[in-house]
Amino acid sequence: MNTNPAEGMRDFSPKDVELRRYLTNKIIESYRQFGFEQIETPCVERIQFLTSGDGGDNEKMLFKILKRGEKLKIEANSSENDLADLGLRYDLTVPLCRFYANNKTKLPAHFKTIQVGNVWRAERPQKGRFRQFTQCDIDIIGIDNVLAETQLILATSGTLKTLGFSNFTIRVNDRRILESLASHCGFETAQFEKVFIIFDKLDKIGIDGVQQELEQAQFSTDAIQQFISLIKQTTQIDFSIESLKTLLPEIPENVIHDLQMVIDTIRSVSNQEYKIQLDVSLVRGMGYYTGQIFEIGMDGYRSSIAGGGRYNKMIAKILGSDEQIPACGFSIGFERVLSILEEQGFTIPETQQKIAILYKLDASQHLSDLYAKVDALKAKGNIVSVEIQIKNTKKQLDDLKAKGFSAFAFYQPENELQLKLLS
Amino acid sequence: MNTNPAEGMRDFSPKDVELRRYLTNKIIESYRQFGFEQIETPCVERIQFLTSGDGGDNEKMLFKILKRGEKLKIEANSSENDLADLGLRYDLTVPLCRFYANNKTKLPAHFKTIQVGNVWRAERPQKGRFRQFTQCDIDIIGIDNVLAETQLILATSGTLKTLGFSNFTIRVNDRRILESLASHCGFETAQFEKVFIIFDKLDKIGIDGVQQELEQAQFSTDAIQQFISLIKQTTQIDFSIESLKTLLPEIPENVIHDLQMVIDTIRSVSNQEYKIQLDVSLVRGMGYYTGQIFEIGMDGYRSSIAGGGRYNKMIAKILGSDEQIPACGFSIGFERVLSILEEQGFTIPETQQKIAILYKLDASQHLSDLYAKVDALKAKGNIVSVEIQIKNTKKQLDDLKAKGFSAFAFYQPENELQLKLLS
Repeated sequence: MNTNPAEGMRDFSPKDVELRRYLTNKIIESYRQFGFEQIETPCVERIQFLTSGDGGDNEKMLFKILKRGEKLKIEANSSENDLADLGLRYDLTVPLCRFYANNKTKLPAHFKTIQVGNVWRAERPQKGRFRQFTQCDIDIIGIDNVLAETQLILATSGTLKTLGFSNFTIRVNDRRILESLASHCGFETAQFEKVFIIFDKLDKIGIDGVQQELEQAQFSTDAIQQFISLIKQTTQIDFSIESLKTLLPEIPENVIHDLQMVIDTIRSVSNQEYKIQLDVSLVRGMGYYTGQIFEIGMDGYRSSIAGGGRYNKMIAKILGSDEQIPACGFSIGFERVLSILEEQGFTIPETQQKIAILYKLDASQHLSDLYAKVDALKAKGNIVSVEIQIKNTKKQLDDLKAKGFSAFAFYQPENELQLKLLS
Repeated sequence: MNTNPAEGMRDFSPKDVELRRYLTNKIIESYRQFGFEQIETPCVERIQFLTSGDGGDNEKMLFKILKRGEKLKIEANSSENDLADLGLRYDLTVPLCRFYANNKTKLPAHFKTIQVGNVWRAERPQKGRFRQFTQCDIDIIGIDNVLAETQLILATSGTLKTLGFSNFTIRVNDRRILESLASHCGFETAQFEKVFIIFDKLDKIGIDGVQQELEQAQFSTDAIQQFISLIKQTTQIDFSIESLKTLLPEIPENVIHDLQMVIDTIRSVSNQEYKIQLDVSLVRGMGYYTGQIFEIGMDGYRSSIAGGGRYNKMIAKILGSDEQIPACGFSIGFERVLSILEEQGFTIPETQQKIAILYKLDASQHLSDLYAKVDALKAKGNIVSVEIQIKNTKKQLDDLKAKGFSAFAFYQPENELQLKLLS
């Protein structure tokens, strides 16, 4: 039998789990300090919520769950959706929107949430990509004002600082700037999404690559030319929000004002421990964003460690309501952050001493005496593990040391435990 | 759209999550103090492991996951297992055995693990039964000696004490006693499992009920009569392990010796804070148990709050090996423990002050100043939440108090924050 975890999934050793648990607790405690509160939704959702179109490419990677009992009718012309009624969530935003829609009347007008949990995507297995992985999101629902964006950015960057990160840069943009830009150049509204998907590759393929792909997609040559020329201007180092106004006068005044406000506020509070800047080339994949979008990158690392933005239409869609419900979120890339910390040799600060009591199995056993002595040591706040003594004492002590034990004692029924340091 | 969680699943409010997180952290910390280490396996396993027969009735409640892409071929005569290649785990024991089988050579000879995680069962929805719920298991692999059983029982009862439980009783039995008993009465080996399933209902239907069901199942009248008469003797209050020897002389000597050893040891270490006793009527559902089995019950509560036992054959089966691999586990019924604590009005000890800063949205905004003041308060270790001031101040302050805030201040750009107690 193949005893590996299922394809793309991972088993975690005690050392892995210790670090993952330490990090999630740190992140949650930090978010809580900013007044966010943790909620939890099930890992399994009705399939309708996971196939509504809002999930973009993630919906193609959905793990679907077979109907059960009489509900399952297998026929030759059954489609996947005839056979499945549930699925594993692929993110934490769709479940949050369902949660909010379901509990709206009971929740505060301004709802600040933390979610930490696993999500599943049937990705093609490759290095650093997993089919089950952890996401850490904060969201603010009910605030249609930069008070939401700024709180999210401060809580996220504050949390990253708590984890020991510095030298990171927050890049911000606004979906409405992207739309003004595309419209200004003469692209049609129906073409925007496709243009943005290509534009999103700027980091990887460069400006010439973007131009080439736009040409391959057979957009109007005029539009492409104008677009590329504008992008070249906006990505210059000294490009400011002020210049954006001149370049694209059709951008609504409040979009510019809000962006300026967010950048000024964060810059002022950041104490220069991290940077924030406008990046007109920031797209973010998900089509559901309606306003500001943000991403955090680390000097020296290619992919981002956090991302988010405003999505004012998603909850209304679930409620079938015409009225928008303002919502904005920011997600820390947990697996990414973890792997960077591991690369940097991060170790958890020790707070408890780990002591091993080596016990020789024999007929008389003396278990009551053994456990009474162990209890007394434990009562002092130590981690105390009873270990069966093996023949090769040197190997056993080496192994214990490698596992983080700092002291040990041989158990002898007639004597007190004599602790010795493991060195 | 139905925005409820999927059938049998639950959304957790901030208050729910706070308690669940507090409890899981308490449990893990307590287990760690006994030298157990946490591992984690994926929620999703290959379907072979979940349909091997070891899961008993749980396998009937399996959530199966549809194959994806080209692997999925839907035909009229497809069986469920043609369509599914994965499933959601229904317990943490099967994944642990797979984990151990997969990592055997890298793991210590004696492996003491903690697992805390969700499991899924498509139960018929009813009060207190959920389709996604949390299990907390500890297991010791590699020790074929009561050093395993006693450590598991001490760690579990120690953890229950940490959570504030007292007045609980540990009942122990051994599968081999049950087998000797059934064999002594003249039941055939092939009938044992069915006899035990009926016997397991003793709590609910009483001794007459058991007799009736055995008769309905048409076992030999002689066997039934002997069985009922023996049970009546073993369930008397003054029944001791010594009397068991006389009653069933065929029970192997070491079974009796080990039971006596476990009971004596725990009784001695327990300091009379909880009880332990032999209960020959203890069956435990799972067929995979091979030795001692145990369960913990609370005075005044019907269903048990923890259960476990020895399963020496399961890992060997996965490895396809003839040689047994000793293993023993104990599981705390997390949802049960949580609901008892909630019933008893348990509250989490407060360690941080929660302060709300009421901010009036206006055009000038002063966000940098606001966040600088909030930061200074946070730096003192408080939870500080910026809240938009609403018109009805009294209602807002009442709501904040209900959410655990103990102080608040109105934000005024020109003044320092004036904290007031919420009372």
